[in-house]
Amino acid sequence: MAVYTDISETDLKTFLAQYDVGELTSYRGIAEGVENSNFLLHTTKEPLILTLYEKRVDAGDLPFFLGLMQHLAKRGLSCPLPLPRRDGALTGELSGRPAALISFLEGVWLRKPEAQNCHDVGKALAEMHLAAADFSIRRPNALSLDGWVELWAKAGPRADEVLAGLQAEIGDELDFLSAHWPRDLPAGVIHADLFQDNVFFLNNTLSGLIDFYFACNDLLAYDVAICLNAWCFEADGAYNFAKGAAMLAGYQSVRPLLDAEAAALPILCRGSALRFFLTRLYDWLTTPAGALVVKKDPLEYLRKLRFHRAIVSPGEYGLAPRGEGI
Amino acid sequence: MAVYTDISETDLKTFLAQYDVGELTSYRGIAEGVENSNFLLHTTKEPLILTLYEKRVDAGDLPFFLGLMQHLAKRGLSCPLPLPRRDGALTGELSGRPAALISFLEGVWLRKPEAQNCHDVGKALAEMHLAAADFSIRRPNALSLDGWVELWAKAGPRADEVLAGLQAEIGDELDFLSAHWPRDLPAGVIHADLFQDNVFFLNNTLSGLIDFYFACNDLLAYDVAICLNAWCFEADGAYNFAKGAAMLAGYQSVRPLLDAEAAALPILCRGSALRFFLTRLYDWLTTPAGALVVKKDPLEYLRKLRFHRAIVSPGEYGLAPRGEGI
Repeated sequence: MAVYTDISETDLKTFLAQYDVGELTSYRGIAEGVENSNFLLHTTKEPLILTLYEKRVDAGDLPFFLGLMQHLAKRGLSCPLPLPRRDGALTGELSGRPAALISFLEGVWLRKPEAQNCHDVGKALAEMHLAAADFSIRRPNALSLDGWVELWAKAGPRADEVLAGLQAEIGDELDFLSAHWPRDLPAGVIHADLFQDNVFFLNNTLSGLIDFYFACNDLLAYDVAICLNAWCFEADGAYNFAKGAAMLAGYQSVRPLLDAEAAALPILCRGSALRFFLTRLYDWLTTPAGALVVKKDPLEYLRKLRFHRAIVSPGEYGLAPRGEGI
Repeated sequence: MAVYTDISETDLKTFLAQYDVGELTSYRGIAEGVENSNFLLHTTKEPLILTLYEKRVDAGDLPFFLGLMQHLAKRGLSCPLPLPRRDGALTGELSGRPAALISFLEGVWLRKPEAQNCHDVGKALAEMHLAAADFSIRRPNALSLDGWVELWAKAGPRADEVLAGLQAEIGDELDFLSAHWPRDLPAGVIHADLFQDNVFFLNNTLSGLIDFYFACNDLLAYDVAICLNAWCFEADGAYNFAKGAAMLAGYQSVRPLLDAEAAALPILCRGSALRFFLTRLYDWLTTPAGALVVKKDPLEYLRKLRFHRAIVSPGEYGLAPRGEGI
C-alpha cells in the first residue's frame, strides 16, 4: 500500500505524448504494491495503470518483467499488457524514475477465497508456467537458498527479539534446507508472489494475474508451494485441506506434477514458508517506526513452516495419487 | 493520503445491491483524503467513488455534506453527486462504517496552477456561494474563532518546541483577531478547504470542485481568503500578485465583494492563515511517529500569517478598485 512519488499533470502529459493512448481525463494514486508508485489513469479511450519504479526495483530487471508480461499476454494469458511507446520502448522516465504504462485489468481480488477459487488459481499458475516456457530472458531467483542465507545473516542475530528460540530454530531449518533442497526438478519462469491480491476475479471467474515483479527462474513446483502457503491456510493458522486439494487438482489439470515434484512438495513448502518468514522478519526489524508501510507479521509464516515440517507425505496436502487428478 | 479500511468483495456487492448501478468490475483503494477511506470503483456502467467515513467525520454531519453536494449539482455546479439507494437514503453501512456512493468526477488537480487557473477557481467559488444560497441545512464552522482558541489551548503550551517565540506571537494574534474579527459581512455556505487537490481541470478548463467535508456556514469572504492562502503563494513563500488579482477578479466576475468585505480581506486572510497553522501545529505535535499520514509543515502558514499582518490595503492582494473588476 504505497504511493511514494507524486507526478505533475504537465510531466504526465509529456510522458503520455510518447504513447498512442487517448487524452488523459484523470489520474489517481492507488494504494497498491509495496515496491512502486501506481496510478490509475482514465483516458478518452481506456483505463490504464501507470507504474513508477522506485529504488527497490532494479531497472536492469525491467526488460524481464515487462517482456514477460508481454510474452504471457501474447500467449493468451490474461495479465496486464505493457504498452509500447511510439518508438517501441516499454519504459520511459517520469519524475526521475523509470515508468511504464500498462493495461488496466478489470476484476477484484478475493479477501475470502473458496476452494473453487483455489482450483482456478492452480490452473492459471500451470497455464502461466506453460506459456512462459519459451520466454527467452532469464532472471535468477534472488530469494532462494543463497538469498535466505544472506537475509538470515542480517536478521538472525536479532531474531530472538521477535520470539525466544527463533535463532536456533531457523538456523536449524536453514541447515536442513541447504542439505536437502531439490536441484533436479523441472524449472522455468515462476510468478513467485501469487498472493490473493495478485489474482483478479470477475463474477467468481478468474480474470487475470498481476504483479510480476518477483517473477524469476526457479523450480516450477516451488511456485505451487508458494500458492499453497498463500491461499490454503485459514486466519486461525489451520491448513485447509479442501482448498489445497482443489489448488493442486487445478494445477494438475493443466500440468501434472512429476513424482519427484510431488515428493518434494513438503520441503518446497518449508522453503517457501521460510522465504516469506525471512523477508517479513527483516522488514519487521529494519522498517523505521515512521515509515508509511504496514508491516506484516513474520510469525504467520513461522507457523506455516512448522506445519510443513510435520508433513510426511504430499497426500496430506490433498495431492491426488497419479491418474486421479481432475 | 489514506486508505484506513479494507472491504471484502462480498460485503461490497451486498452494499451495491442497494443501488441502481451496473455490475462491479473492479475497486481500488485510492490515496486521497486524510479523513476517510476512498475507493475508485469501475462498473459495467460508469466509474464511481465509494467513501467510508472514518471516525474523524461526525456521522451527524453527513446529511449536510451529502445534501450540499446534491443541492449544488442540481444547481448546475460540477461536483460529485451522491447516488441515492433504491430506498432513497444517501448513505449505507459497509465494514462497520457509514458509506456513500458518489459519482466520479473526471479531471486532474493542478500541481502548478497559473494565474488563469486561479481566475477560474475564484469564479467557481463565487458560483458555489450563489448556488448554495438556498441550501436549508446549517452547519456552524467548528474551525472559526472559538475553535482556534480551543486548538490553541491544547497546542499553545508546546508551540515553542516548534519555533522559539511562537507562544507569544500566536497568543497576540489570537487576541487581535478576537477583538477585531468581522461579524456583519455576508454569510452563507462556504467550502472552507478549496485547496489545489480539491479542484479538477480538464484541458486547463475547470471541471469541478470536490471534497465538501469541511463545508460549513461562515462569512463568504473568508472562503476567498482561504483560497488566496491556498493558491496564491509560491513555494518560496512569496505572494503571487498576478494570481491573487486573477483569483479576486474571477470571484468578482460572479459576485462582486462589498466594500466592507474588501476592507476585511487582510484580517480574513490572517484568520485563515491562523486556522491552517493551528490544525497543522496540533497534528504536528500529536500525530504519533508511526502513523500512516504525511504531516504538513505548520510554519508555511506562519509565514503567510506574517505576510498578511503587514498588508495595509486590500489592493495589495490585487483587488481591483470598485467598478474595475473583469
